[in-house]
Amino acid sequence: MSLPDLAAVLVEVRRRAPLTHCLIGAVTAPVVADGLLAAGGRPMMTSTIDEAPALVRSADSLLVDLAALNQETTTAIMPTVAAARYAGMPWVLDPAAIGVAPVRTPLAHNLIRLRPAAVRGNASEIRTLAGGIGGSRGADSTLDSRTVVDDARRLAASTNGVVVVSGMVDVVTDGDRVVQLAGGDALLARVTGTGCLLSGLVAACAAVASGFDAAVAAVAMMSSAAEMAARRSTGPGSFKVALIDALADLEPAALQTRMQTPTPVPVQR
Amino acid sequence: MSLPDLAAVLVEVRRRAPLTHCLIGAVTAPVVADGLLAAGGRPMMTSTIDEAPALVRSADSLLVDLAALNQETTTAIMPTVAAARYAGMPWVLDPAAIGVAPVRTPLAHNLIRLRPAAVRGNASEIRTLAGGIGGSRGADSTLDSRTVVDDARRLAASTNGVVVVSGMVDVVTDGDRVVQLAGGDALLARVTGTGCLLSGLVAACAAVASGFDAAVAAVAMMSSAAEMAARRSTGPGSFKVALIDALADLEPAALQTRMQTPTPVPVQR
Amino acid sequence: MSLPDLAAVLVEVRRRAPLTHCLIGAVTAPVVADGLLAAGGRPMMTSTIDEAPALVRSADSLLVDLAALNQETTTAIMPTVAAARYAGMPWVLDPAAIGVAPVRTPLAHNLIRLRPAAVRGNASEIRTLAGGIGGSRGADSTLDSRTVVDDARRLAASTNGVVVVSGMVDVVTDGDRVVQLAGGDALLARVTGTGCLLSGLVAACAAVASGFDAAVAAVAMMSSAAEMAARRSTGPGSFKVALIDALADLEPAALQTRMQTPTPVPVQR
Repeated sequence: MSLPDLAAVLVEVRRRAPLTHCLIGAVTAPVVADGLLAAGGRPMMTSTIDEAPALVRSADSLLVDLAALNQETTTAIMPTVAAARYAGMPWVLDPAAIGVAPVRTPLAHNLIRLRPAAVRGNASEIRTLAGGIGGSRGADSTLDSRTVVDDARRLAASTNGVVVVSGMVDVVTDGDRVVQLAGGDALLARVTGTGCLLSGLVAACAAVASGFDAAVAAVAMMSSAAEMAARRSTGPGSFKVALIDALADLEPAALQTRMQTPTPVPVQR
Repeated sequence: MSLPDLAAVLVEVRRRAPLTHCLIGAVTAPVVADGLLAAGGRPMMTSTIDEAPALVRSADSLLVDLAALNQETTTAIMPTVAAARYAGMPWVLDPAAIGVAPVRTPLAHNLIRLRPAAVRGNASEIRTLAGGIGGSRGADSTLDSRTVVDDARRLAASTNGVVVVSGMVDVVTDGDRVVQLAGGDALLARVTGTGCLLSGLVAACAAVASGFDAAVAAVAMMSSAAEMAARRSTGPGSFKVALIDALADLEPAALQTRMQTPTPVPVQR
Repeated sequence: MSLPDLAAVLVEVRRRAPLTHCLIGAVTAPVVADGLLAAGGRPMMTSTIDEAPALVRSADSLLVDLAALNQETTTAIMPTVAAARYAGMPWVLDPAAIGVAPVRTPLAHNLIRLRPAAVRGNASEIRTLAGGIGGSRGADSTLDSRTVVDDARRLAASTNGVVVVSGMVDVVTDGDRVVQLAGGDALLARVTGTGCLLSGLVAACAAVASGFDAAVAAVAMMSSAAEMAARRSTGPGSFKVALIDALADLEPAALQTRMQTPTPVPVQR
């Protein structure tokens, strides 16, 4: 398996500053917007059915994040995804909260038929999307990412895209290849919106690289930034601020090193 | 009057990580979510009428915050409260902005008939709810909390619940008992969402303790965190960040000490 | 041209704490609310058509910010502006994203007929509003503020109000007078909501001063705060926090000095 050139992905994001249209809820929109800007991308967050399908055409990629969506934005999803697909840009699905949510669960199942370039969720969400039973309560997962590798591979094969399972260990797969990346920091789970931000970074990177390279690069960026932020902060509040600073500070070369020396975590099948 | 065991409430919040469903506006949702997570709870912020009444059943408590609500979330309030009551979980009302707001004022009056475990507001809001005339403009109160103790007691008696009046001095009453806690910091009023966050903390604590103990514990947590944050910050921006850090840092034993040596503020009747 | 008394504007904002009603999207609402509070004003962010036109009557000024607005708030704009005008209070328009947005573009053109006391946008937005062709993609402008001075003057003349063009150099004009202020910091463009916050500060200042003095004072406040914040921060995350601290720390006398020694930037016609 050839290693993705993670440094090149980050350099390209900063050089091209891709415009990522985000359909996203109010709770996490501010940190996703700030994180995308810090990393070198540009967010656009128009969410109405009247404008989103028109504006997405000027974007380079699209994120559809189901976290805490309102009805109005929910209505805008299908036409906006259709417009993004028609324009040939990659789009990323964050199936937040599915499994328990009665509207978003069937919606997410419909959306994966529209072949997202990447799906980013926690283990419960990915298992649910892949057809199994998730087992989450609220926004957290009670499963280890590594126990859903098969679900993730099946889901990736069915969408012909990439699946990212985030957790203590992050798993990225395109159905064939499977990469596991350890790292990051436990504080990521103590701050709202870090999962959404990772999904946004996948979308930003997907505007400048293939889905698989984009997903691995985004995971490496997030983990590296989280480790840097943990060293510079004294709790979840200052961690959230330091995370944004760290995304702006990332050294492309350091990302590459991270990939070339992966933490040896055995794949569980 | 026996003293509530505040340390035990905080320890239980951290041990059980209660899931608090919040119906809340976009302006303050991010800080409430981060504050709940920092304190040891878990927020869930689905707000649509299609999903909120279904999802609330998996929660441990519910917060209904009227601050800057949109119409869609407003519609979801009644069925979500009904579902929470049916499930037997405590719910907390934050009657933000009532008195002047033509929709939320009658809505809040209807809601108190659904017996919230706690109501948390400033002096103007509590007086308005209790039937008097509030006298606020915008989100601030022009009254001292201690002047509305009788209103708060009457309101608590009518809901068979607890009322928290926040201000320079915070008042907690269940109709019989009245506790006044001084402390906190003036910067709390210079940052948006601190009142909403206090309401969220009351809801989180109410999932693990009686309404009165939960309310006093939440007030003590917020005041202690604010004092810690004030020492670590240089203005309202860094105070807001340090407040989240401080909520994660709270020592249960320190809370208890706070309660055992209350600042002697005479009750005004 | 007599120089506006910028120190007096800031002193008055702090003394009177004007209540500024904001119709604004969820992405930037939190930072605008915190920034207004830090500077000495008070935000109110009710956005429903049922309540906004009633509540605005208790405000001292109104901000209508088109950034990422939802349909519900969009519907509330016209009746709320009408109520603000009837009450005689100044209102400020932030025509975010117009040019590309199919609903907001004609809406903004209709709104400028309702004579906002000030319009605040980037060069592309101001050129679009003035009838030219903007040339933006996403939220950024590809034009230099100084190249649209004539557009800004024409727009100001047509509204009988003030126009603020923000960018590396900020331009303020009432059609006759033109002031250019350099300063600020490049990090302002790396953080979401700083443009919206500047618009909010213009609205807060307009509650206590003439439109022209208010606009110049708000620009000077924002630039001074940004320079202070840049010195105290290590990236866009900490810059956003330090910006709020700095708004609370501004010395009125320093603002005045800023105005009395303007950076000599030649007006390009």
